[in-house]
Amino acid sequence: MAQNVAEKLIHSHLVSGTPEPGEEIGLTIDQTLTQDATGTMVMLELESLGLDRIRTELSVQYVDHNLLQTDEKNPEDHLFLQSAAERYGLWFSKAGNGVSHPVHQARFGRPGATLIGSDSHTCAAGALGMLAIGVGGLEIAMAMAGDPLYVQMPEVWGVELTGDLPDWVSAKDVVLEMLRRHDVKGGAGRIIEYHGEGLKHLTAMDRHVIANMGAELGATTTVFPADDAVRDYMAAVGREDEFTELVADEGATYDVEEHIDMSSLEPLIAKPSSPGNVVPVREAAGEEVHQVVVGSSANPGLRDFAVVAEILRDKQSSDRVSLDVNPTSREILQDLTRGGWILELIRSGARIHQSGCNGCIGMGQAPAVGRNSLRTMPRNFPGRSGTDEDSVWLCSPETAAAAALTGRITDPRDLDMAYPVPQLPAKYSINTDMLLPPLEESEAREVELVKGSNIKSLPTFDPLPEDIDLPVLLKVGDNISTDEIMPAGSRVLPFRSNIPKIAEFVYVQVDDTYPARAAENDGGHAIVGGDNYGQGSSREHAVIAPRHLGLRVVVAKSFARIHWQNLANFGMLPLEFADPADAERISQGDVLSFTRLHEALRAGNSVTARLGGESVELRHRLSERQMEMVLAGGRIPYRAAQSEETANAGTQGSDIPREKVKPTQPEG
Amino acid sequence: MAQNVAEKLIHSHLVSGTPEPGEEIGLTIDQTLTQDATGTMVMLELESLGLDRIRTELSVQYVDHNLLQTDEKNPEDHLFLQSAAERYGLWFSKAGNGVSHPVHQARFGRPGATLIGSDSHTCAAGALGMLAIGVGGLEIAMAMAGDPLYVQMPEVWGVELTGDLPDWVSAKDVVLEMLRRHDVKGGAGRIIEYHGEGLKHLTAMDRHVIANMGAELGATTTVFPADDAVRDYMAAVGREDEFTELVADEGATYDVEEHIDMSSLEPLIAKPSSPGNVVPVREAAGEEVHQVVVGSSANPGLRDFAVVAEILRDKQSSDRVSLDVNPTSREILQDLTRGGWILELIRSGARIHQSGCNGCIGMGQAPAVGRNSLRTMPRNFPGRSGTDEDSVWLCSPETAAAAALTGRITDPRDLDMAYPVPQLPAKYSINTDMLLPPLEESEAREVELVKGSNIKSLPTFDPLPEDIDLPVLLKVGDNISTDEIMPAGSRVLPFRSNIPKIAEFVYVQVDDTYPARAAENDGGHAIVGGDNYGQGSSREHAVIAPRHLGLRVVVAKSFARIHWQNLANFGMLPLEFADPADAERISQGDVLSFTRLHEALRAGNSVTARLGGESVELRHRLSERQMEMVLAGGRIPYRAAQSEETANAGTQGSDIPREKVKPTQPEG
Repeated sequence: MAQNVAEKLIHSHLVSGTPEPGEEIGLTIDQTLTQDATGTMVMLELESLGLDRIRTELSVQYVDHNLLQTDEKNPEDHLFLQSAAERYGLWFSKAGNGVSHPVHQARFGRPGATLIGSDSHTCAAGALGMLAIGVGGLEIAMAMAGDPLYVQMPEVWGVELTGDLPDWVSAKDVVLEMLRRHDVKGGAGRIIEYHGEGLKHLTAMDRHVIANMGAELGATTTVFPADDAVRDYMAAVGREDEFTELVADEGATYDVEEHIDMSSLEPLIAKPSSPGNVVPVREAAGEEVHQVVVGSSANPGLRDFAVVAEILRDKQSSDRVSLDVNPTSREILQDLTRGGWILELIRSGARIHQSGCNGCIGMGQAPAVGRNSLRTMPRNFPGRSGTDEDSVWLCSPETAAAAALTGRITDPRDLDMAYPVPQLPAKYSINTDMLLPPLEESEAREVELVKGSNIKSLPTFDPLPEDIDLPVLLKVGDNISTDEIMPAGSRVLPFRSNIPKIAEFVYVQVDDTYPARAAENDGGHAIVGGDNYGQGSSREHAVIAPRHLGLRVVVAKSFARIHWQNLANFGMLPLEFADPADAERISQGDVLSFTRLHEALRAGNSVTARLGGESVELRHRLSERQMEMVLAGGRIPYRAAQSEETANAGTQGSDIPREKVKPTQPEG
Repeated sequence: MAQNVAEKLIHSHLVSGTPEPGEEIGLTIDQTLTQDATGTMVMLELESLGLDRIRTELSVQYVDHNLLQTDEKNPEDHLFLQSAAERYGLWFSKAGNGVSHPVHQARFGRPGATLIGSDSHTCAAGALGMLAIGVGGLEIAMAMAGDPLYVQMPEVWGVELTGDLPDWVSAKDVVLEMLRRHDVKGGAGRIIEYHGEGLKHLTAMDRHVIANMGAELGATTTVFPADDAVRDYMAAVGREDEFTELVADEGATYDVEEHIDMSSLEPLIAKPSSPGNVVPVREAAGEEVHQVVVGSSANPGLRDFAVVAEILRDKQSSDRVSLDVNPTSREILQDLTRGGWILELIRSGARIHQSGCNGCIGMGQAPAVGRNSLRTMPRNFPGRSGTDEDSVWLCSPETAAAAALTGRITDPRDLDMAYPVPQLPAKYSINTDMLLPPLEESEAREVELVKGSNIKSLPTFDPLPEDIDLPVLLKVGDNISTDEIMPAGSRVLPFRSNIPKIAEFVYVQVDDTYPARAAENDGGHAIVGGDNYGQGSSREHAVIAPRHLGLRVVVAKSFARIHWQNLANFGMLPLEFADPADAERISQGDVLSFTRLHEALRAGNSVTARLGGESVELRHRLSERQMEMVLAGGRIPYRAAQSEETANAGTQGSDIPREKVKPTQPEG
């Protein structure tokens, strides 16, 4: 039967389950990536698993988030990560080497491989015809230990692209158009697969932009075929020999179908404070702009900076604007320098920052309260910039450059100039000296982990009780993001290796009394949420820290995929209302009571909670494996128990022997 | 009579007093500079003075310190400063334009002028034959309002330079040699004037390095003659027409004389945690290095970066080192880019940061606890890096580059290579587009100050009581720096416009119970210190914040100049022990009692304090003007009272009519 690209990737890596939408499947994982903000926890998980050496094809630990170093915590995390990479056999990308996604794509990406990353934008590598999925850190630790990745089989959403992009419209506008049509949960439970004749107008880095912000649609991932554009890219990064074609079979179909005529698109912009608030730029034109930030994994390519430089060539940015430029990687900074673009940017008044995520995750570059900041970044959730009452907009490099010039939101088509098309080099700079290869295993075993005083081992969590009364300590609305649950930013990110400390910041932007109330309340508590609970970043701190504060059950109308999985991984029960209207019946302060909970969960997908004298019908979507995990207190205690059993039976601790999960190359 | 350069500068600007060492003199001020960390307070002082337009030749407000923007406070300070510069008629240097001292020297410096700056490294402009003095912010505000600067006439310390520097030894080693010989208070009460045939081997930017760290010697300032090297520099920055020769007369003499044979110098390094702990690099060679930071006002020139790039050319920095590069200004970044040096630095593994002070003032780039960080910066006081238990060393760019290569402290002469001498351009890049000129006065009057919620008006302070009992809430040792009194760093600097908030951080690194104890203690308190109390940065927050907490009197063995003046400016009484041994008689918790204090101060320079049943003899060095200021509660209430008097008499509020303080050009 004719297969699309997503199906080929899944079938070639399937080790358990039936790939029907909604079924849990197990996939073998070829590569992993971790960044520093989530990676310290992953390394602590490897430590708590007692792993000796990773079993993936390759795993890379990047340092791109916590680069400000306002005190010793960031640099001590970097030292810890470097020592852990050496100890467990990972590659290590030093601070300054660049943002994980574009660096990983350039140096390690290859068509047909699976990649999971403890960063929600891992999906960007779908640009190369990879199955690249952002997951919680524990999933990465388990994959490194040799386990498959378990996911619910998504639907495949075929988006046919036709036509070519008009001048002043670029890849970012394509994905903003998807967000305009479908908002931040339109892709939930789906893999987005782009196809069609329009693809020939999109380079691999253009596709990276579109795949990156598939995360904002809530999609499991985005895939593109590995075609000539990917071959050209692999040649440009010096790895053409690792290219293999991977395209959909003739006659392949999709579970859902959609069409975008790229020639009909215009410059778009996401208004504050959701990536889904998309309007044409012309509708917002004229608003004063205080800051323009260029960079991040959402517009990481050489072109995305070069086009800004070309628009600003021989001109000066507005006196009223701070123009901040974050080169994605040192390779791209090299090429920007070689091409003369960085000189144009400096001349035009840009502040050139170190290579890394920087302001995209609130690591500096915060704007003034209420003043408009235009960014080429993927997210503008409230407060993510570091400023509580921020006003952040998301747009293409072209629209960002126009605002930098005029000091106002400006449709770039209204600039009085020809659309500049930067001439990119056929070969990009290659510089891998800050990418340290794994040590030999004998040497690795001698390495001691370097733990600064802020690096605390993972807390242990007890099993879910049979009978439990849980006060609802917080009730929140729809589309709560993990930025709201567990803020990022320079004040909080440094505590990513210290659960007791970081727990003091849980939900503070929504209700700053929550951490204290939760800590005071012994015996556990519940949170009630709305639709799409836990969207956004993959950070598992958004579950571990509330769990540390006593969270046992989250009841919501629906969950975002990664957060839902993270809850289960750490032994919390994610439940959905059988009737979403029942959410109105529960108020903060009410008590939800559960009896014979284990029995109920094992009996089916329904759970009844008592609420005062009444009852509320709830559902769960956990697989049997996940349910047992939750009952055991999470995946680590569950695996420990399993290992003990298999050890007694004389076999290895992994769910499935490594031989069986060896990746096979999918057909072209 | 034959005059040296310092005397020429002073005589040409003298408006009151006799220029004999120790006498208070008044000097007319041509130029001022303020940076953002101290400048917000200066602008609030202008507001509280009710000034309409500045009366200096030119004043410039720079933004170079608080660039991280971890939340809205930094960008809101920037907006406030931009609005205040417009309102009062200052130039404004936007964030990203660069560090105040090298930018000011390049764009505004001219031989023969006086400059005061609310930054202790303002003295760097002495490189051009200027009298450039770092002072507290209130001195700047008063100078902008048209008042002279009052200082105690320093001795002039003539340092004769002979010979040429050997390979691998550069200007930084000259000033480190001065620090090795004289430690951090060796220059107190002195102007250092370099002269001699060795000068011909030092460019104006080399002299900037030496003049900059005169601040570390505690000197009032450093001056160099304006000779051919300065003419070459003025031509290179496109302002040769503003050059005038200013050299010592034949036969000029100095109050103190010293000689350095530059050909005998070797690479030097200041060990943790004082700029005075200087040893030859070879004595520290072999120690592991974790971080190398290049940049800051102490090594700001194109050469200082280019030589690092040349040493690293075609090589890779150590895997164990974070190599951080802070380009001083965007003009220098442009030239580094044009010359290909930035590409070499990127290739070799450097993290290129935005132009500004950055890690030099603890704004990011903090090292790990106890790990060695080598910096080309001017200061390494404990905790200044942002890490409490830091281990920071100060050295030349050559020594820094050697450590970056080897991962260990390394005498650069031991590198197996020829000493590279970068070929600098004859003309530097000029780019003034981020340097916004003052508005016309009519337009300026319409400007409203833009005050974010963290920008609080200056508190008002009451006069010094006649009779007062002051508990000693803190007793500290020698060489207490203003970094210890009022920490900088990213946690504290954002509160520079908010005295009540920043007061919570006073002395926390020394005794974190002090702010709470002081706030609880009504009725005022005293602090007892040792020698050289208040060395380091010029920050007046180190007096305003303790004053807000109730500090009335500081008794020390001796004071650093700027801090002493700042205390008096804000109405605190700086007293010295008649017998330094008496410091041993006072313990924390003792009470010092003063009676008829006004009478005693006016009667002479002796003050007796009662301590239990005994008495302690103390001295003050205040001029009559300063004494009256202290009694009135500080310079602002004192000036207000004076203005009222002169207003009643029908003349202007300035101490001296502006016509009388018009600068005269000193003779060549």
